[in-house]
Amino acid sequence: MNRVRIGIVGIGNMGTAHARYVSGGEINGAELAAVCDISADRLRWAKEQFGEALHTFESVDAMLDSGTVDAILICNLHFDHPSTAMKAFARGIHVLCEKPAGVYTKQVREMNEAAAASGVKFAMMFNQRTIPLYKKLKDLIDSGELGEIRRTNWIITNWYRSQSYYDSGKWRATWAGEGGGVLLNQCPHQLDLWQWTVGMLPSRVRAFCSFGKYRDIEVEDEVTAYVEYPNGATGVFITTTAEAPGTNRLEVTGERGKIVIEDGKLTFWRLRVSEPEFNQTFKGAFGQPECWKCDVPVSTDSKAHKAITQNWVDSIRTGVNLIAPGEEGIRGLTLSNAMYLSAWTDGWVELPLDEDRFHELLQERIATSRYQSNT
Amino acid sequence: MNRVRIGIVGIGNMGTAHARYVSGGEINGAELAAVCDISADRLRWAKEQFGEALHTFESVDAMLDSGTVDAILICNLHFDHPSTAMKAFARGIHVLCEKPAGVYTKQVREMNEAAAASGVKFAMMFNQRTIPLYKKLKDLIDSGELGEIRRTNWIITNWYRSQSYYDSGKWRATWAGEGGGVLLNQCPHQLDLWQWTVGMLPSRVRAFCSFGKYRDIEVEDEVTAYVEYPNGATGVFITTTAEAPGTNRLEVTGERGKIVIEDGKLTFWRLRVSEPEFNQTFKGAFGQPECWKCDVPVSTDSKAHKAITQNWVDSIRTGVNLIAPGEEGIRGLTLSNAMYLSAWTDGWVELPLDEDRFHELLQERIATSRYQSNT
Repeated sequence: MNRVRIGIVGIGNMGTAHARYVSGGEINGAELAAVCDISADRLRWAKEQFGEALHTFESVDAMLDSGTVDAILICNLHFDHPSTAMKAFARGIHVLCEKPAGVYTKQVREMNEAAAASGVKFAMMFNQRTIPLYKKLKDLIDSGELGEIRRTNWIITNWYRSQSYYDSGKWRATWAGEGGGVLLNQCPHQLDLWQWTVGMLPSRVRAFCSFGKYRDIEVEDEVTAYVEYPNGATGVFITTTAEAPGTNRLEVTGERGKIVIEDGKLTFWRLRVSEPEFNQTFKGAFGQPECWKCDVPVSTDSKAHKAITQNWVDSIRTGVNLIAPGEEGIRGLTLSNAMYLSAWTDGWVELPLDEDRFHELLQERIATSRYQSNT
Repeated sequence: MNRVRIGIVGIGNMGTAHARYVSGGEINGAELAAVCDISADRLRWAKEQFGEALHTFESVDAMLDSGTVDAILICNLHFDHPSTAMKAFARGIHVLCEKPAGVYTKQVREMNEAAAASGVKFAMMFNQRTIPLYKKLKDLIDSGELGEIRRTNWIITNWYRSQSYYDSGKWRATWAGEGGGVLLNQCPHQLDLWQWTVGMLPSRVRAFCSFGKYRDIEVEDEVTAYVEYPNGATGVFITTTAEAPGTNRLEVTGERGKIVIEDGKLTFWRLRVSEPEFNQTFKGAFGQPECWKCDVPVSTDSKAHKAITQNWVDSIRTGVNLIAPGEEGIRGLTLSNAMYLSAWTDGWVELPLDEDRFHELLQERIATSRYQSNT
């Protein structure tokens, strides 16, 4: 296949970042062909930045119908991700979608079905899947080194956002404008990594969200969630945008020990024999399994966004497996949807999620949101 | 006052440990005068160990009425702590009680009222209050260095207990024999330190307990609890006896930063200006308060049990303040009672606790317990 002609949907912060490295020739086998945005000013600016040969369009449809792009990178509003992707699928155009996959799983499920039917290459921009620490954690779990998972615990509170950040756009941190707060805007990477590394979703969720607790916003700025997995393991996920300096610490325990990722390091406390085996054979009072603190080598080479874009382009050209298949975007979103639903109903939420119920309660909040979009 | 003549109630593991250092002359102004135990064998053994001059009794009443003791150290079964203490109070005899204060707060409240009416010195064996790391944490909170508390998080999972430990006594880990599991047997120190260092109890609790999940026992071997404090702060407490090597990590965040105690170290991440002040004045998009990672000196001198016993003896002789007033034992017990009640009712538990409701549900479990005591 010739070079993949990429179109960028939405030339804001993230769209511009992607446009820069694609137009800079940093993705083998791809070129920046077009950009679409609702702002004529931004389109003029894009031509100045990326050359007069760049095709610009004021609508997604116009770009998709122009014959100038083989693939699009979706960087518009969260709510519009699924509909934009589905327009591309209908035309056989490949899609790489910024996180989150969407705002509610009901629309994302439709997107996934359309993707499967189309046969195009569909990926999510889960660039943190390329971070060696998390790849190594997944490796240690997938290969059985940690044994059956017992407990997961992620304290991810280093997402500090000031009131001035929220005030910088009227759509920010509103139900109608963004559809969520720290879970939907800051945490999609961690929610994806949480399920991706341990290889399972919970069977039920009980979450406690505070809405506008530390900031003048509609959505949540603090969350504690407790989950139970199908294998009996439990987990906790804690996040907020109001703490400084915050913490980023992921602990996963299994039958063969404990892994902690914190401060850019992964430590594996490995039991010489598994805990269940020790427990079965030990006859004394206060003993415990022999434990080795292991230094596991982890590469420091993190390629981030470019690695995901390159993998997607490679997949289009040569069929290699996707690092972050688009269909998996629904998994992390299911977690945040379930957390909201649990907080709103002050009760347990079983998975699979009651998507209609979630959508209904979200719509109630959108209807009374302080932000009223034009659409 | 002359030397305080101490009687030990129950000469098992802990009773023996206390008897050794008291009889060894390690507590200034005190002597080991008597021991009582229901086992004649243990009493004979005690005379062999501590000398023929030791008075021995087969009942608490006999010891208390003998005129041989001024003060008792209670180390018998959890259920009997309050009734034993009240017998001493009625006779003007001072009390130092092993943790927990009792099994349910209803009986402990009666004990506290009797203690107050008696005017004797009543202390709890919360020896971990003498650990310099926790004293320093309390100091940094009490003095306002950390500012208003925002969030607490204690992962205390290094209480490994094998099945053989539980099998070593029929009363162990039964509702009738011990009245609880990891919360009542292993965690009383942490539950006390959790409330003592931050200086407040939650206003409500939502807890998730697994009963006999990893061990063949009646009571809980795994707990995750979420709490909300009167000032709006939130907290999480996680414990289990089934993990190796386990974790002991306490994180407390406040308006002026974050303190973490782990691996025998205390680290204070101190904000130069408080978070609320930064948030009010900052006008940019992604900034956050300047943060200093501070090495705070912490003494390594931990005197443990002996320090509590010495303080209690000093208080009897000279009136110094108690490190762990007996009346405060109810605070940590309130936390564990609330966690059980939340798990049993699968819902929120508000504090002050509904003590009658808790007692009623505990009695149901005791009635069907596999352990049937003789009393």
